[in-house]
Amino acid sequence: MSRSTVDSPVLHGDVAHLGFLLGLWRGEGEGVYPTIAPFHYGEELVVGHVGKPFLSWVQRTWSLDDGRALHAETGYLRSPPGGPVELVLSHPTGVVELSEGECHDGTVTLTSRLVGCTTSAKPVRALSRVIAVEGDVLRYRLSMAAVGRDETDHLTATLRRADGGHP
Amino acid sequence: MSRSTVDSPVLHGDVAHLGFLLGLWRGEGEGVYPTIAPFHYGEELVVGHVGKPFLSWVQRTWSLDDGRALHAETGYLRSPPGGPVELVLSHPTGVVELSEGECHDGTVTLTSRLVGCTTSAKPVRALSRVIAVEGDVLRYRLSMAAVGRDETDHLTATLRRADGGHP
Repeated sequence: MSRSTVDSPVLHGDVAHLGFLLGLWRGEGEGVYPTIAPFHYGEELVVGHVGKPFLSWVQRTWSLDDGRALHAETGYLRSPPGGPVELVLSHPTGVVELSEGECHDGTVTLTSRLVGCTTSAKPVRALSRVIAVEGDVLRYRLSMAAVGRDETDHLTATLRRADGGHP
Repeated sequence: MSRSTVDSPVLHGDVAHLGFLLGLWRGEGEGVYPTIAPFHYGEELVVGHVGKPFLSWVQRTWSLDDGRALHAETGYLRSPPGGPVELVLSHPTGVVELSEGECHDGTVTLTSRLVGCTTSAKPVRALSRVIAVEGDVLRYRLSMAAVGRDETDHLTATLRRADGGHP
């Protein structure tokens, strides 16, 4: 049997309260950091599920000048009963992130418990995220401690549903 | 400007020697572990790139009985000049993996330098992978130290190119 997915699986109960994140989101963001010039970027975020107790998270950004790929991140959101919301993410900069937090009223707040960097990666020590959905608009802000700096603002973006609504 | 990818980017020099991994691979595998019954699974692996110094890695497996989703993993492969091959991966089991190793003659050998587990994850301590491509066949084996066990064989699989050849 070669079928690789179950058609239209039911959203798992563990992540039902995060269902407002599901969908295809597109928009633009702005980046700042003490060590670099401010920059703007386009962004697409796809949050999906396969009926298991996690959501998938696939994000990529691109230059608004010429469309070239900038950053990306990919991983999973979990929310086991009685525990924190959990985010496990990989970054192509050679960074893995394990963040935990909570979700209330359409806002997910996450703080890294572990950030791991490959031999060649620029060192990142901590990441914090606030992701808030109101209607068809998703806004997030991300702060980061990296390259020897204390945690400070890094990214803010506003994305809109690009898939015609909540599945 | 809304274009989100550059059409047909050139493979970055850092990862050119890993280009044999690029493509869509499908096949079947077998899992064993001292704490569970042996199992078989279908698998799809997509290795891609966007012209930057990394390859993207998206894998999912499914039950051969009913097609339901089983495991998945997603992340990036890097290979900066003069350093190890680096793999950063997220697992929906609440695990992040940072593995490093080398590539010779179509075989990539990776050993975890860091494995991080969320609050709710079953504890994984170490992962080792050998991924070998010969022609249109990709074989891998993975060993794992988890749930208090020493590192031991866990997965073996044989995948074949499903996209009509090397891009």
